[in-house]
Amino acid sequence: MTRTTAYTSVPVRYAETDQMGIVHHSVYVIWCELGRTELIKKLGFRYNELEKQGYLSPVTGINLQYKRSAVYDETMTIQTWVKDYSGVRIEYGYLISNENGETCVEGSSEHVCVSKDSFRPLSIKKHLPEWHEMYTREVSH
Amino acid sequence: MTRTTAYTSVPVRYAETDQMGIVHHSVYVIWCELGRTELIKKLGFRYNELEKQGYLSPVTGINLQYKRSAVYDETMTIQTWVKDYSGVRIEYGYLISNENGETCVEGSSEHVCVSKDSFRPLSIKKHLPEWHEMYTREVSH
Amino acid sequence: MTRTTAYTSVPVRYAETDQMGIVHHSVYVIWCELGRTELIKKLGFRYNELEKQGYLSPVTGINLQYKRSAVYDETMTIQTWVKDYSGVRIEYGYLISNENGETCVEGSSEHVCVSKDSFRPLSIKKHLPEWHEMYTREVSH
Amino acid sequence: MTRTTAYTSVPVRYAETDQMGIVHHSVYVIWCELGRTELIKKLGFRYNELEKQGYLSPVTGINLQYKRSAVYDETMTIQTWVKDYSGVRIEYGYLISNENGETCVEGSSEHVCVSKDSFRPLSIKKHLPEWHEMYTREVSH
Repeated sequence: MTRTTAYTSVPVRYAETDQMGIVHHSVYVIWCELGRTELIKKLGFRYNELEKQGYLSPVTGINLQYKRSAVYDETMTIQTWVKDYSGVRIEYGYLISNENGETCVEGSSEHVCVSKDSFRPLSIKKHLPEWHEMYTREVSH
Repeated sequence: MTRTTAYTSVPVRYAETDQMGIVHHSVYVIWCELGRTELIKKLGFRYNELEKQGYLSPVTGINLQYKRSAVYDETMTIQTWVKDYSGVRIEYGYLISNENGETCVEGSSEHVCVSKDSFRPLSIKKHLPEWHEMYTREVSH
Repeated sequence: MTRTTAYTSVPVRYAETDQMGIVHHSVYVIWCELGRTELIKKLGFRYNELEKQGYLSPVTGINLQYKRSAVYDETMTIQTWVKDYSGVRIEYGYLISNENGETCVEGSSEHVCVSKDSFRPLSIKKHLPEWHEMYTREVSH
Repeated sequence: MTRTTAYTSVPVRYAETDQMGIVHHSVYVIWCELGRTELIKKLGFRYNELEKQGYLSPVTGINLQYKRSAVYDETMTIQTWVKDYSGVRIEYGYLISNENGETCVEGSSEHVCVSKDSFRPLSIKKHLPEWHEMYTREVSH
């Protein structure tokens, strides 16, 4: 068995370029979020449902390595997977490549779950047992 | 007497440029919002206080004319004023110019006030009498 | 015969929301650009090719009416068509609707073509005869 | 002697918030860029001049740790300094804090210099000796 990987296709928007003629480096952070959304759906959940239950999942860290520039009018592929899980903290892995299969950006992000009111990290195992089970399954491969 | 005008100074961010080498046209919409925030402060109010009272002021229309491009590393000035007011709908006027005093963008935006729950336009006169008085005073000049 | 309309599907990104809990009004300006890109492809052209030939097509005006809010986790449809054409100035029309077919935003944008060096509007008929023919055909319906 | 630190003041824009009611995590990447621009000016250089000479300085890595959320209507302070320098690669450090002096985000970014045409990293010592001298001086403290 292998971990689940989501493949998200995203055309480069003109507004995402900068005067270097390439995609601005901040945009990849947003693309990673698109990948995360799709991975969560593929795993049978919806991030929006989490928020409707009174929880949020803010980012606590991001680490991206830029290898090659993306440009306007090409379609990127974002690969996303669950990289690590501690019961409290989730780490997602990302690989963003262009149409020629060349890696543009690699990296990871870390997240916790908090309640809307307190914004304090909580035990996913206790408060969101189904998510806990899913994360545990993914990292046990 | 004349209407109140706010003068907001905003340096062009690198991330706001696109591959044309100029500021992307969507950015001016955000700059108008900065001008609006400052005008409201100058008139003695705070937009954030409005939201804390349970109201929002969404945009219902925007109209911008682009005359000249803004570029990275210059500082723009946004002039903002109350252009029209109906008791329900507020129209703000904008003039965005560069360091040489040349007009880059002119335009206007329209807004209503709604309650957070219903999102339905409400009478500002009735629900926000101090704001009503201020808007009325501004457009009576 | 009828005018060509492009239908562009765009999922709402989390980063596109604001603290009102709805899509920020500046985002629709970017969505209109996505619609324009797709319409141009459907008409047999590519905006990027225009730039490679040394031309740019900056926005000279934008006018949007906001009717209803878009929210995270829904997929929007952007309808785009050529609304008017003068030989120098092109006007595109937009209608952005949600999954229930409700109109969220309607509007238009105006554009000229300029050379990369001068940034001065030029005759499309003279410099870009194939684009001229296409625009003329679209507005003659 | 101590390293030079730039202090950049940036009011939180409404458009920078998301439906969590806090600043979207991608925005800090843009704020770091603002800090970098200011640090470079404080050190007697201008990034724009570099580009006019035919060089670019793309980001090759970014690493941010999010400690606390920033919210609308407060003014953030971005501290930026040169953290490391290898002759080819520059690392900047960042500390972003709110009005109460609380740290919201800490992190770093890595950059190279490339020529506009090739996009290949070059020796700063050889091609940009004044910048080399400045970076060397900063990290020798």
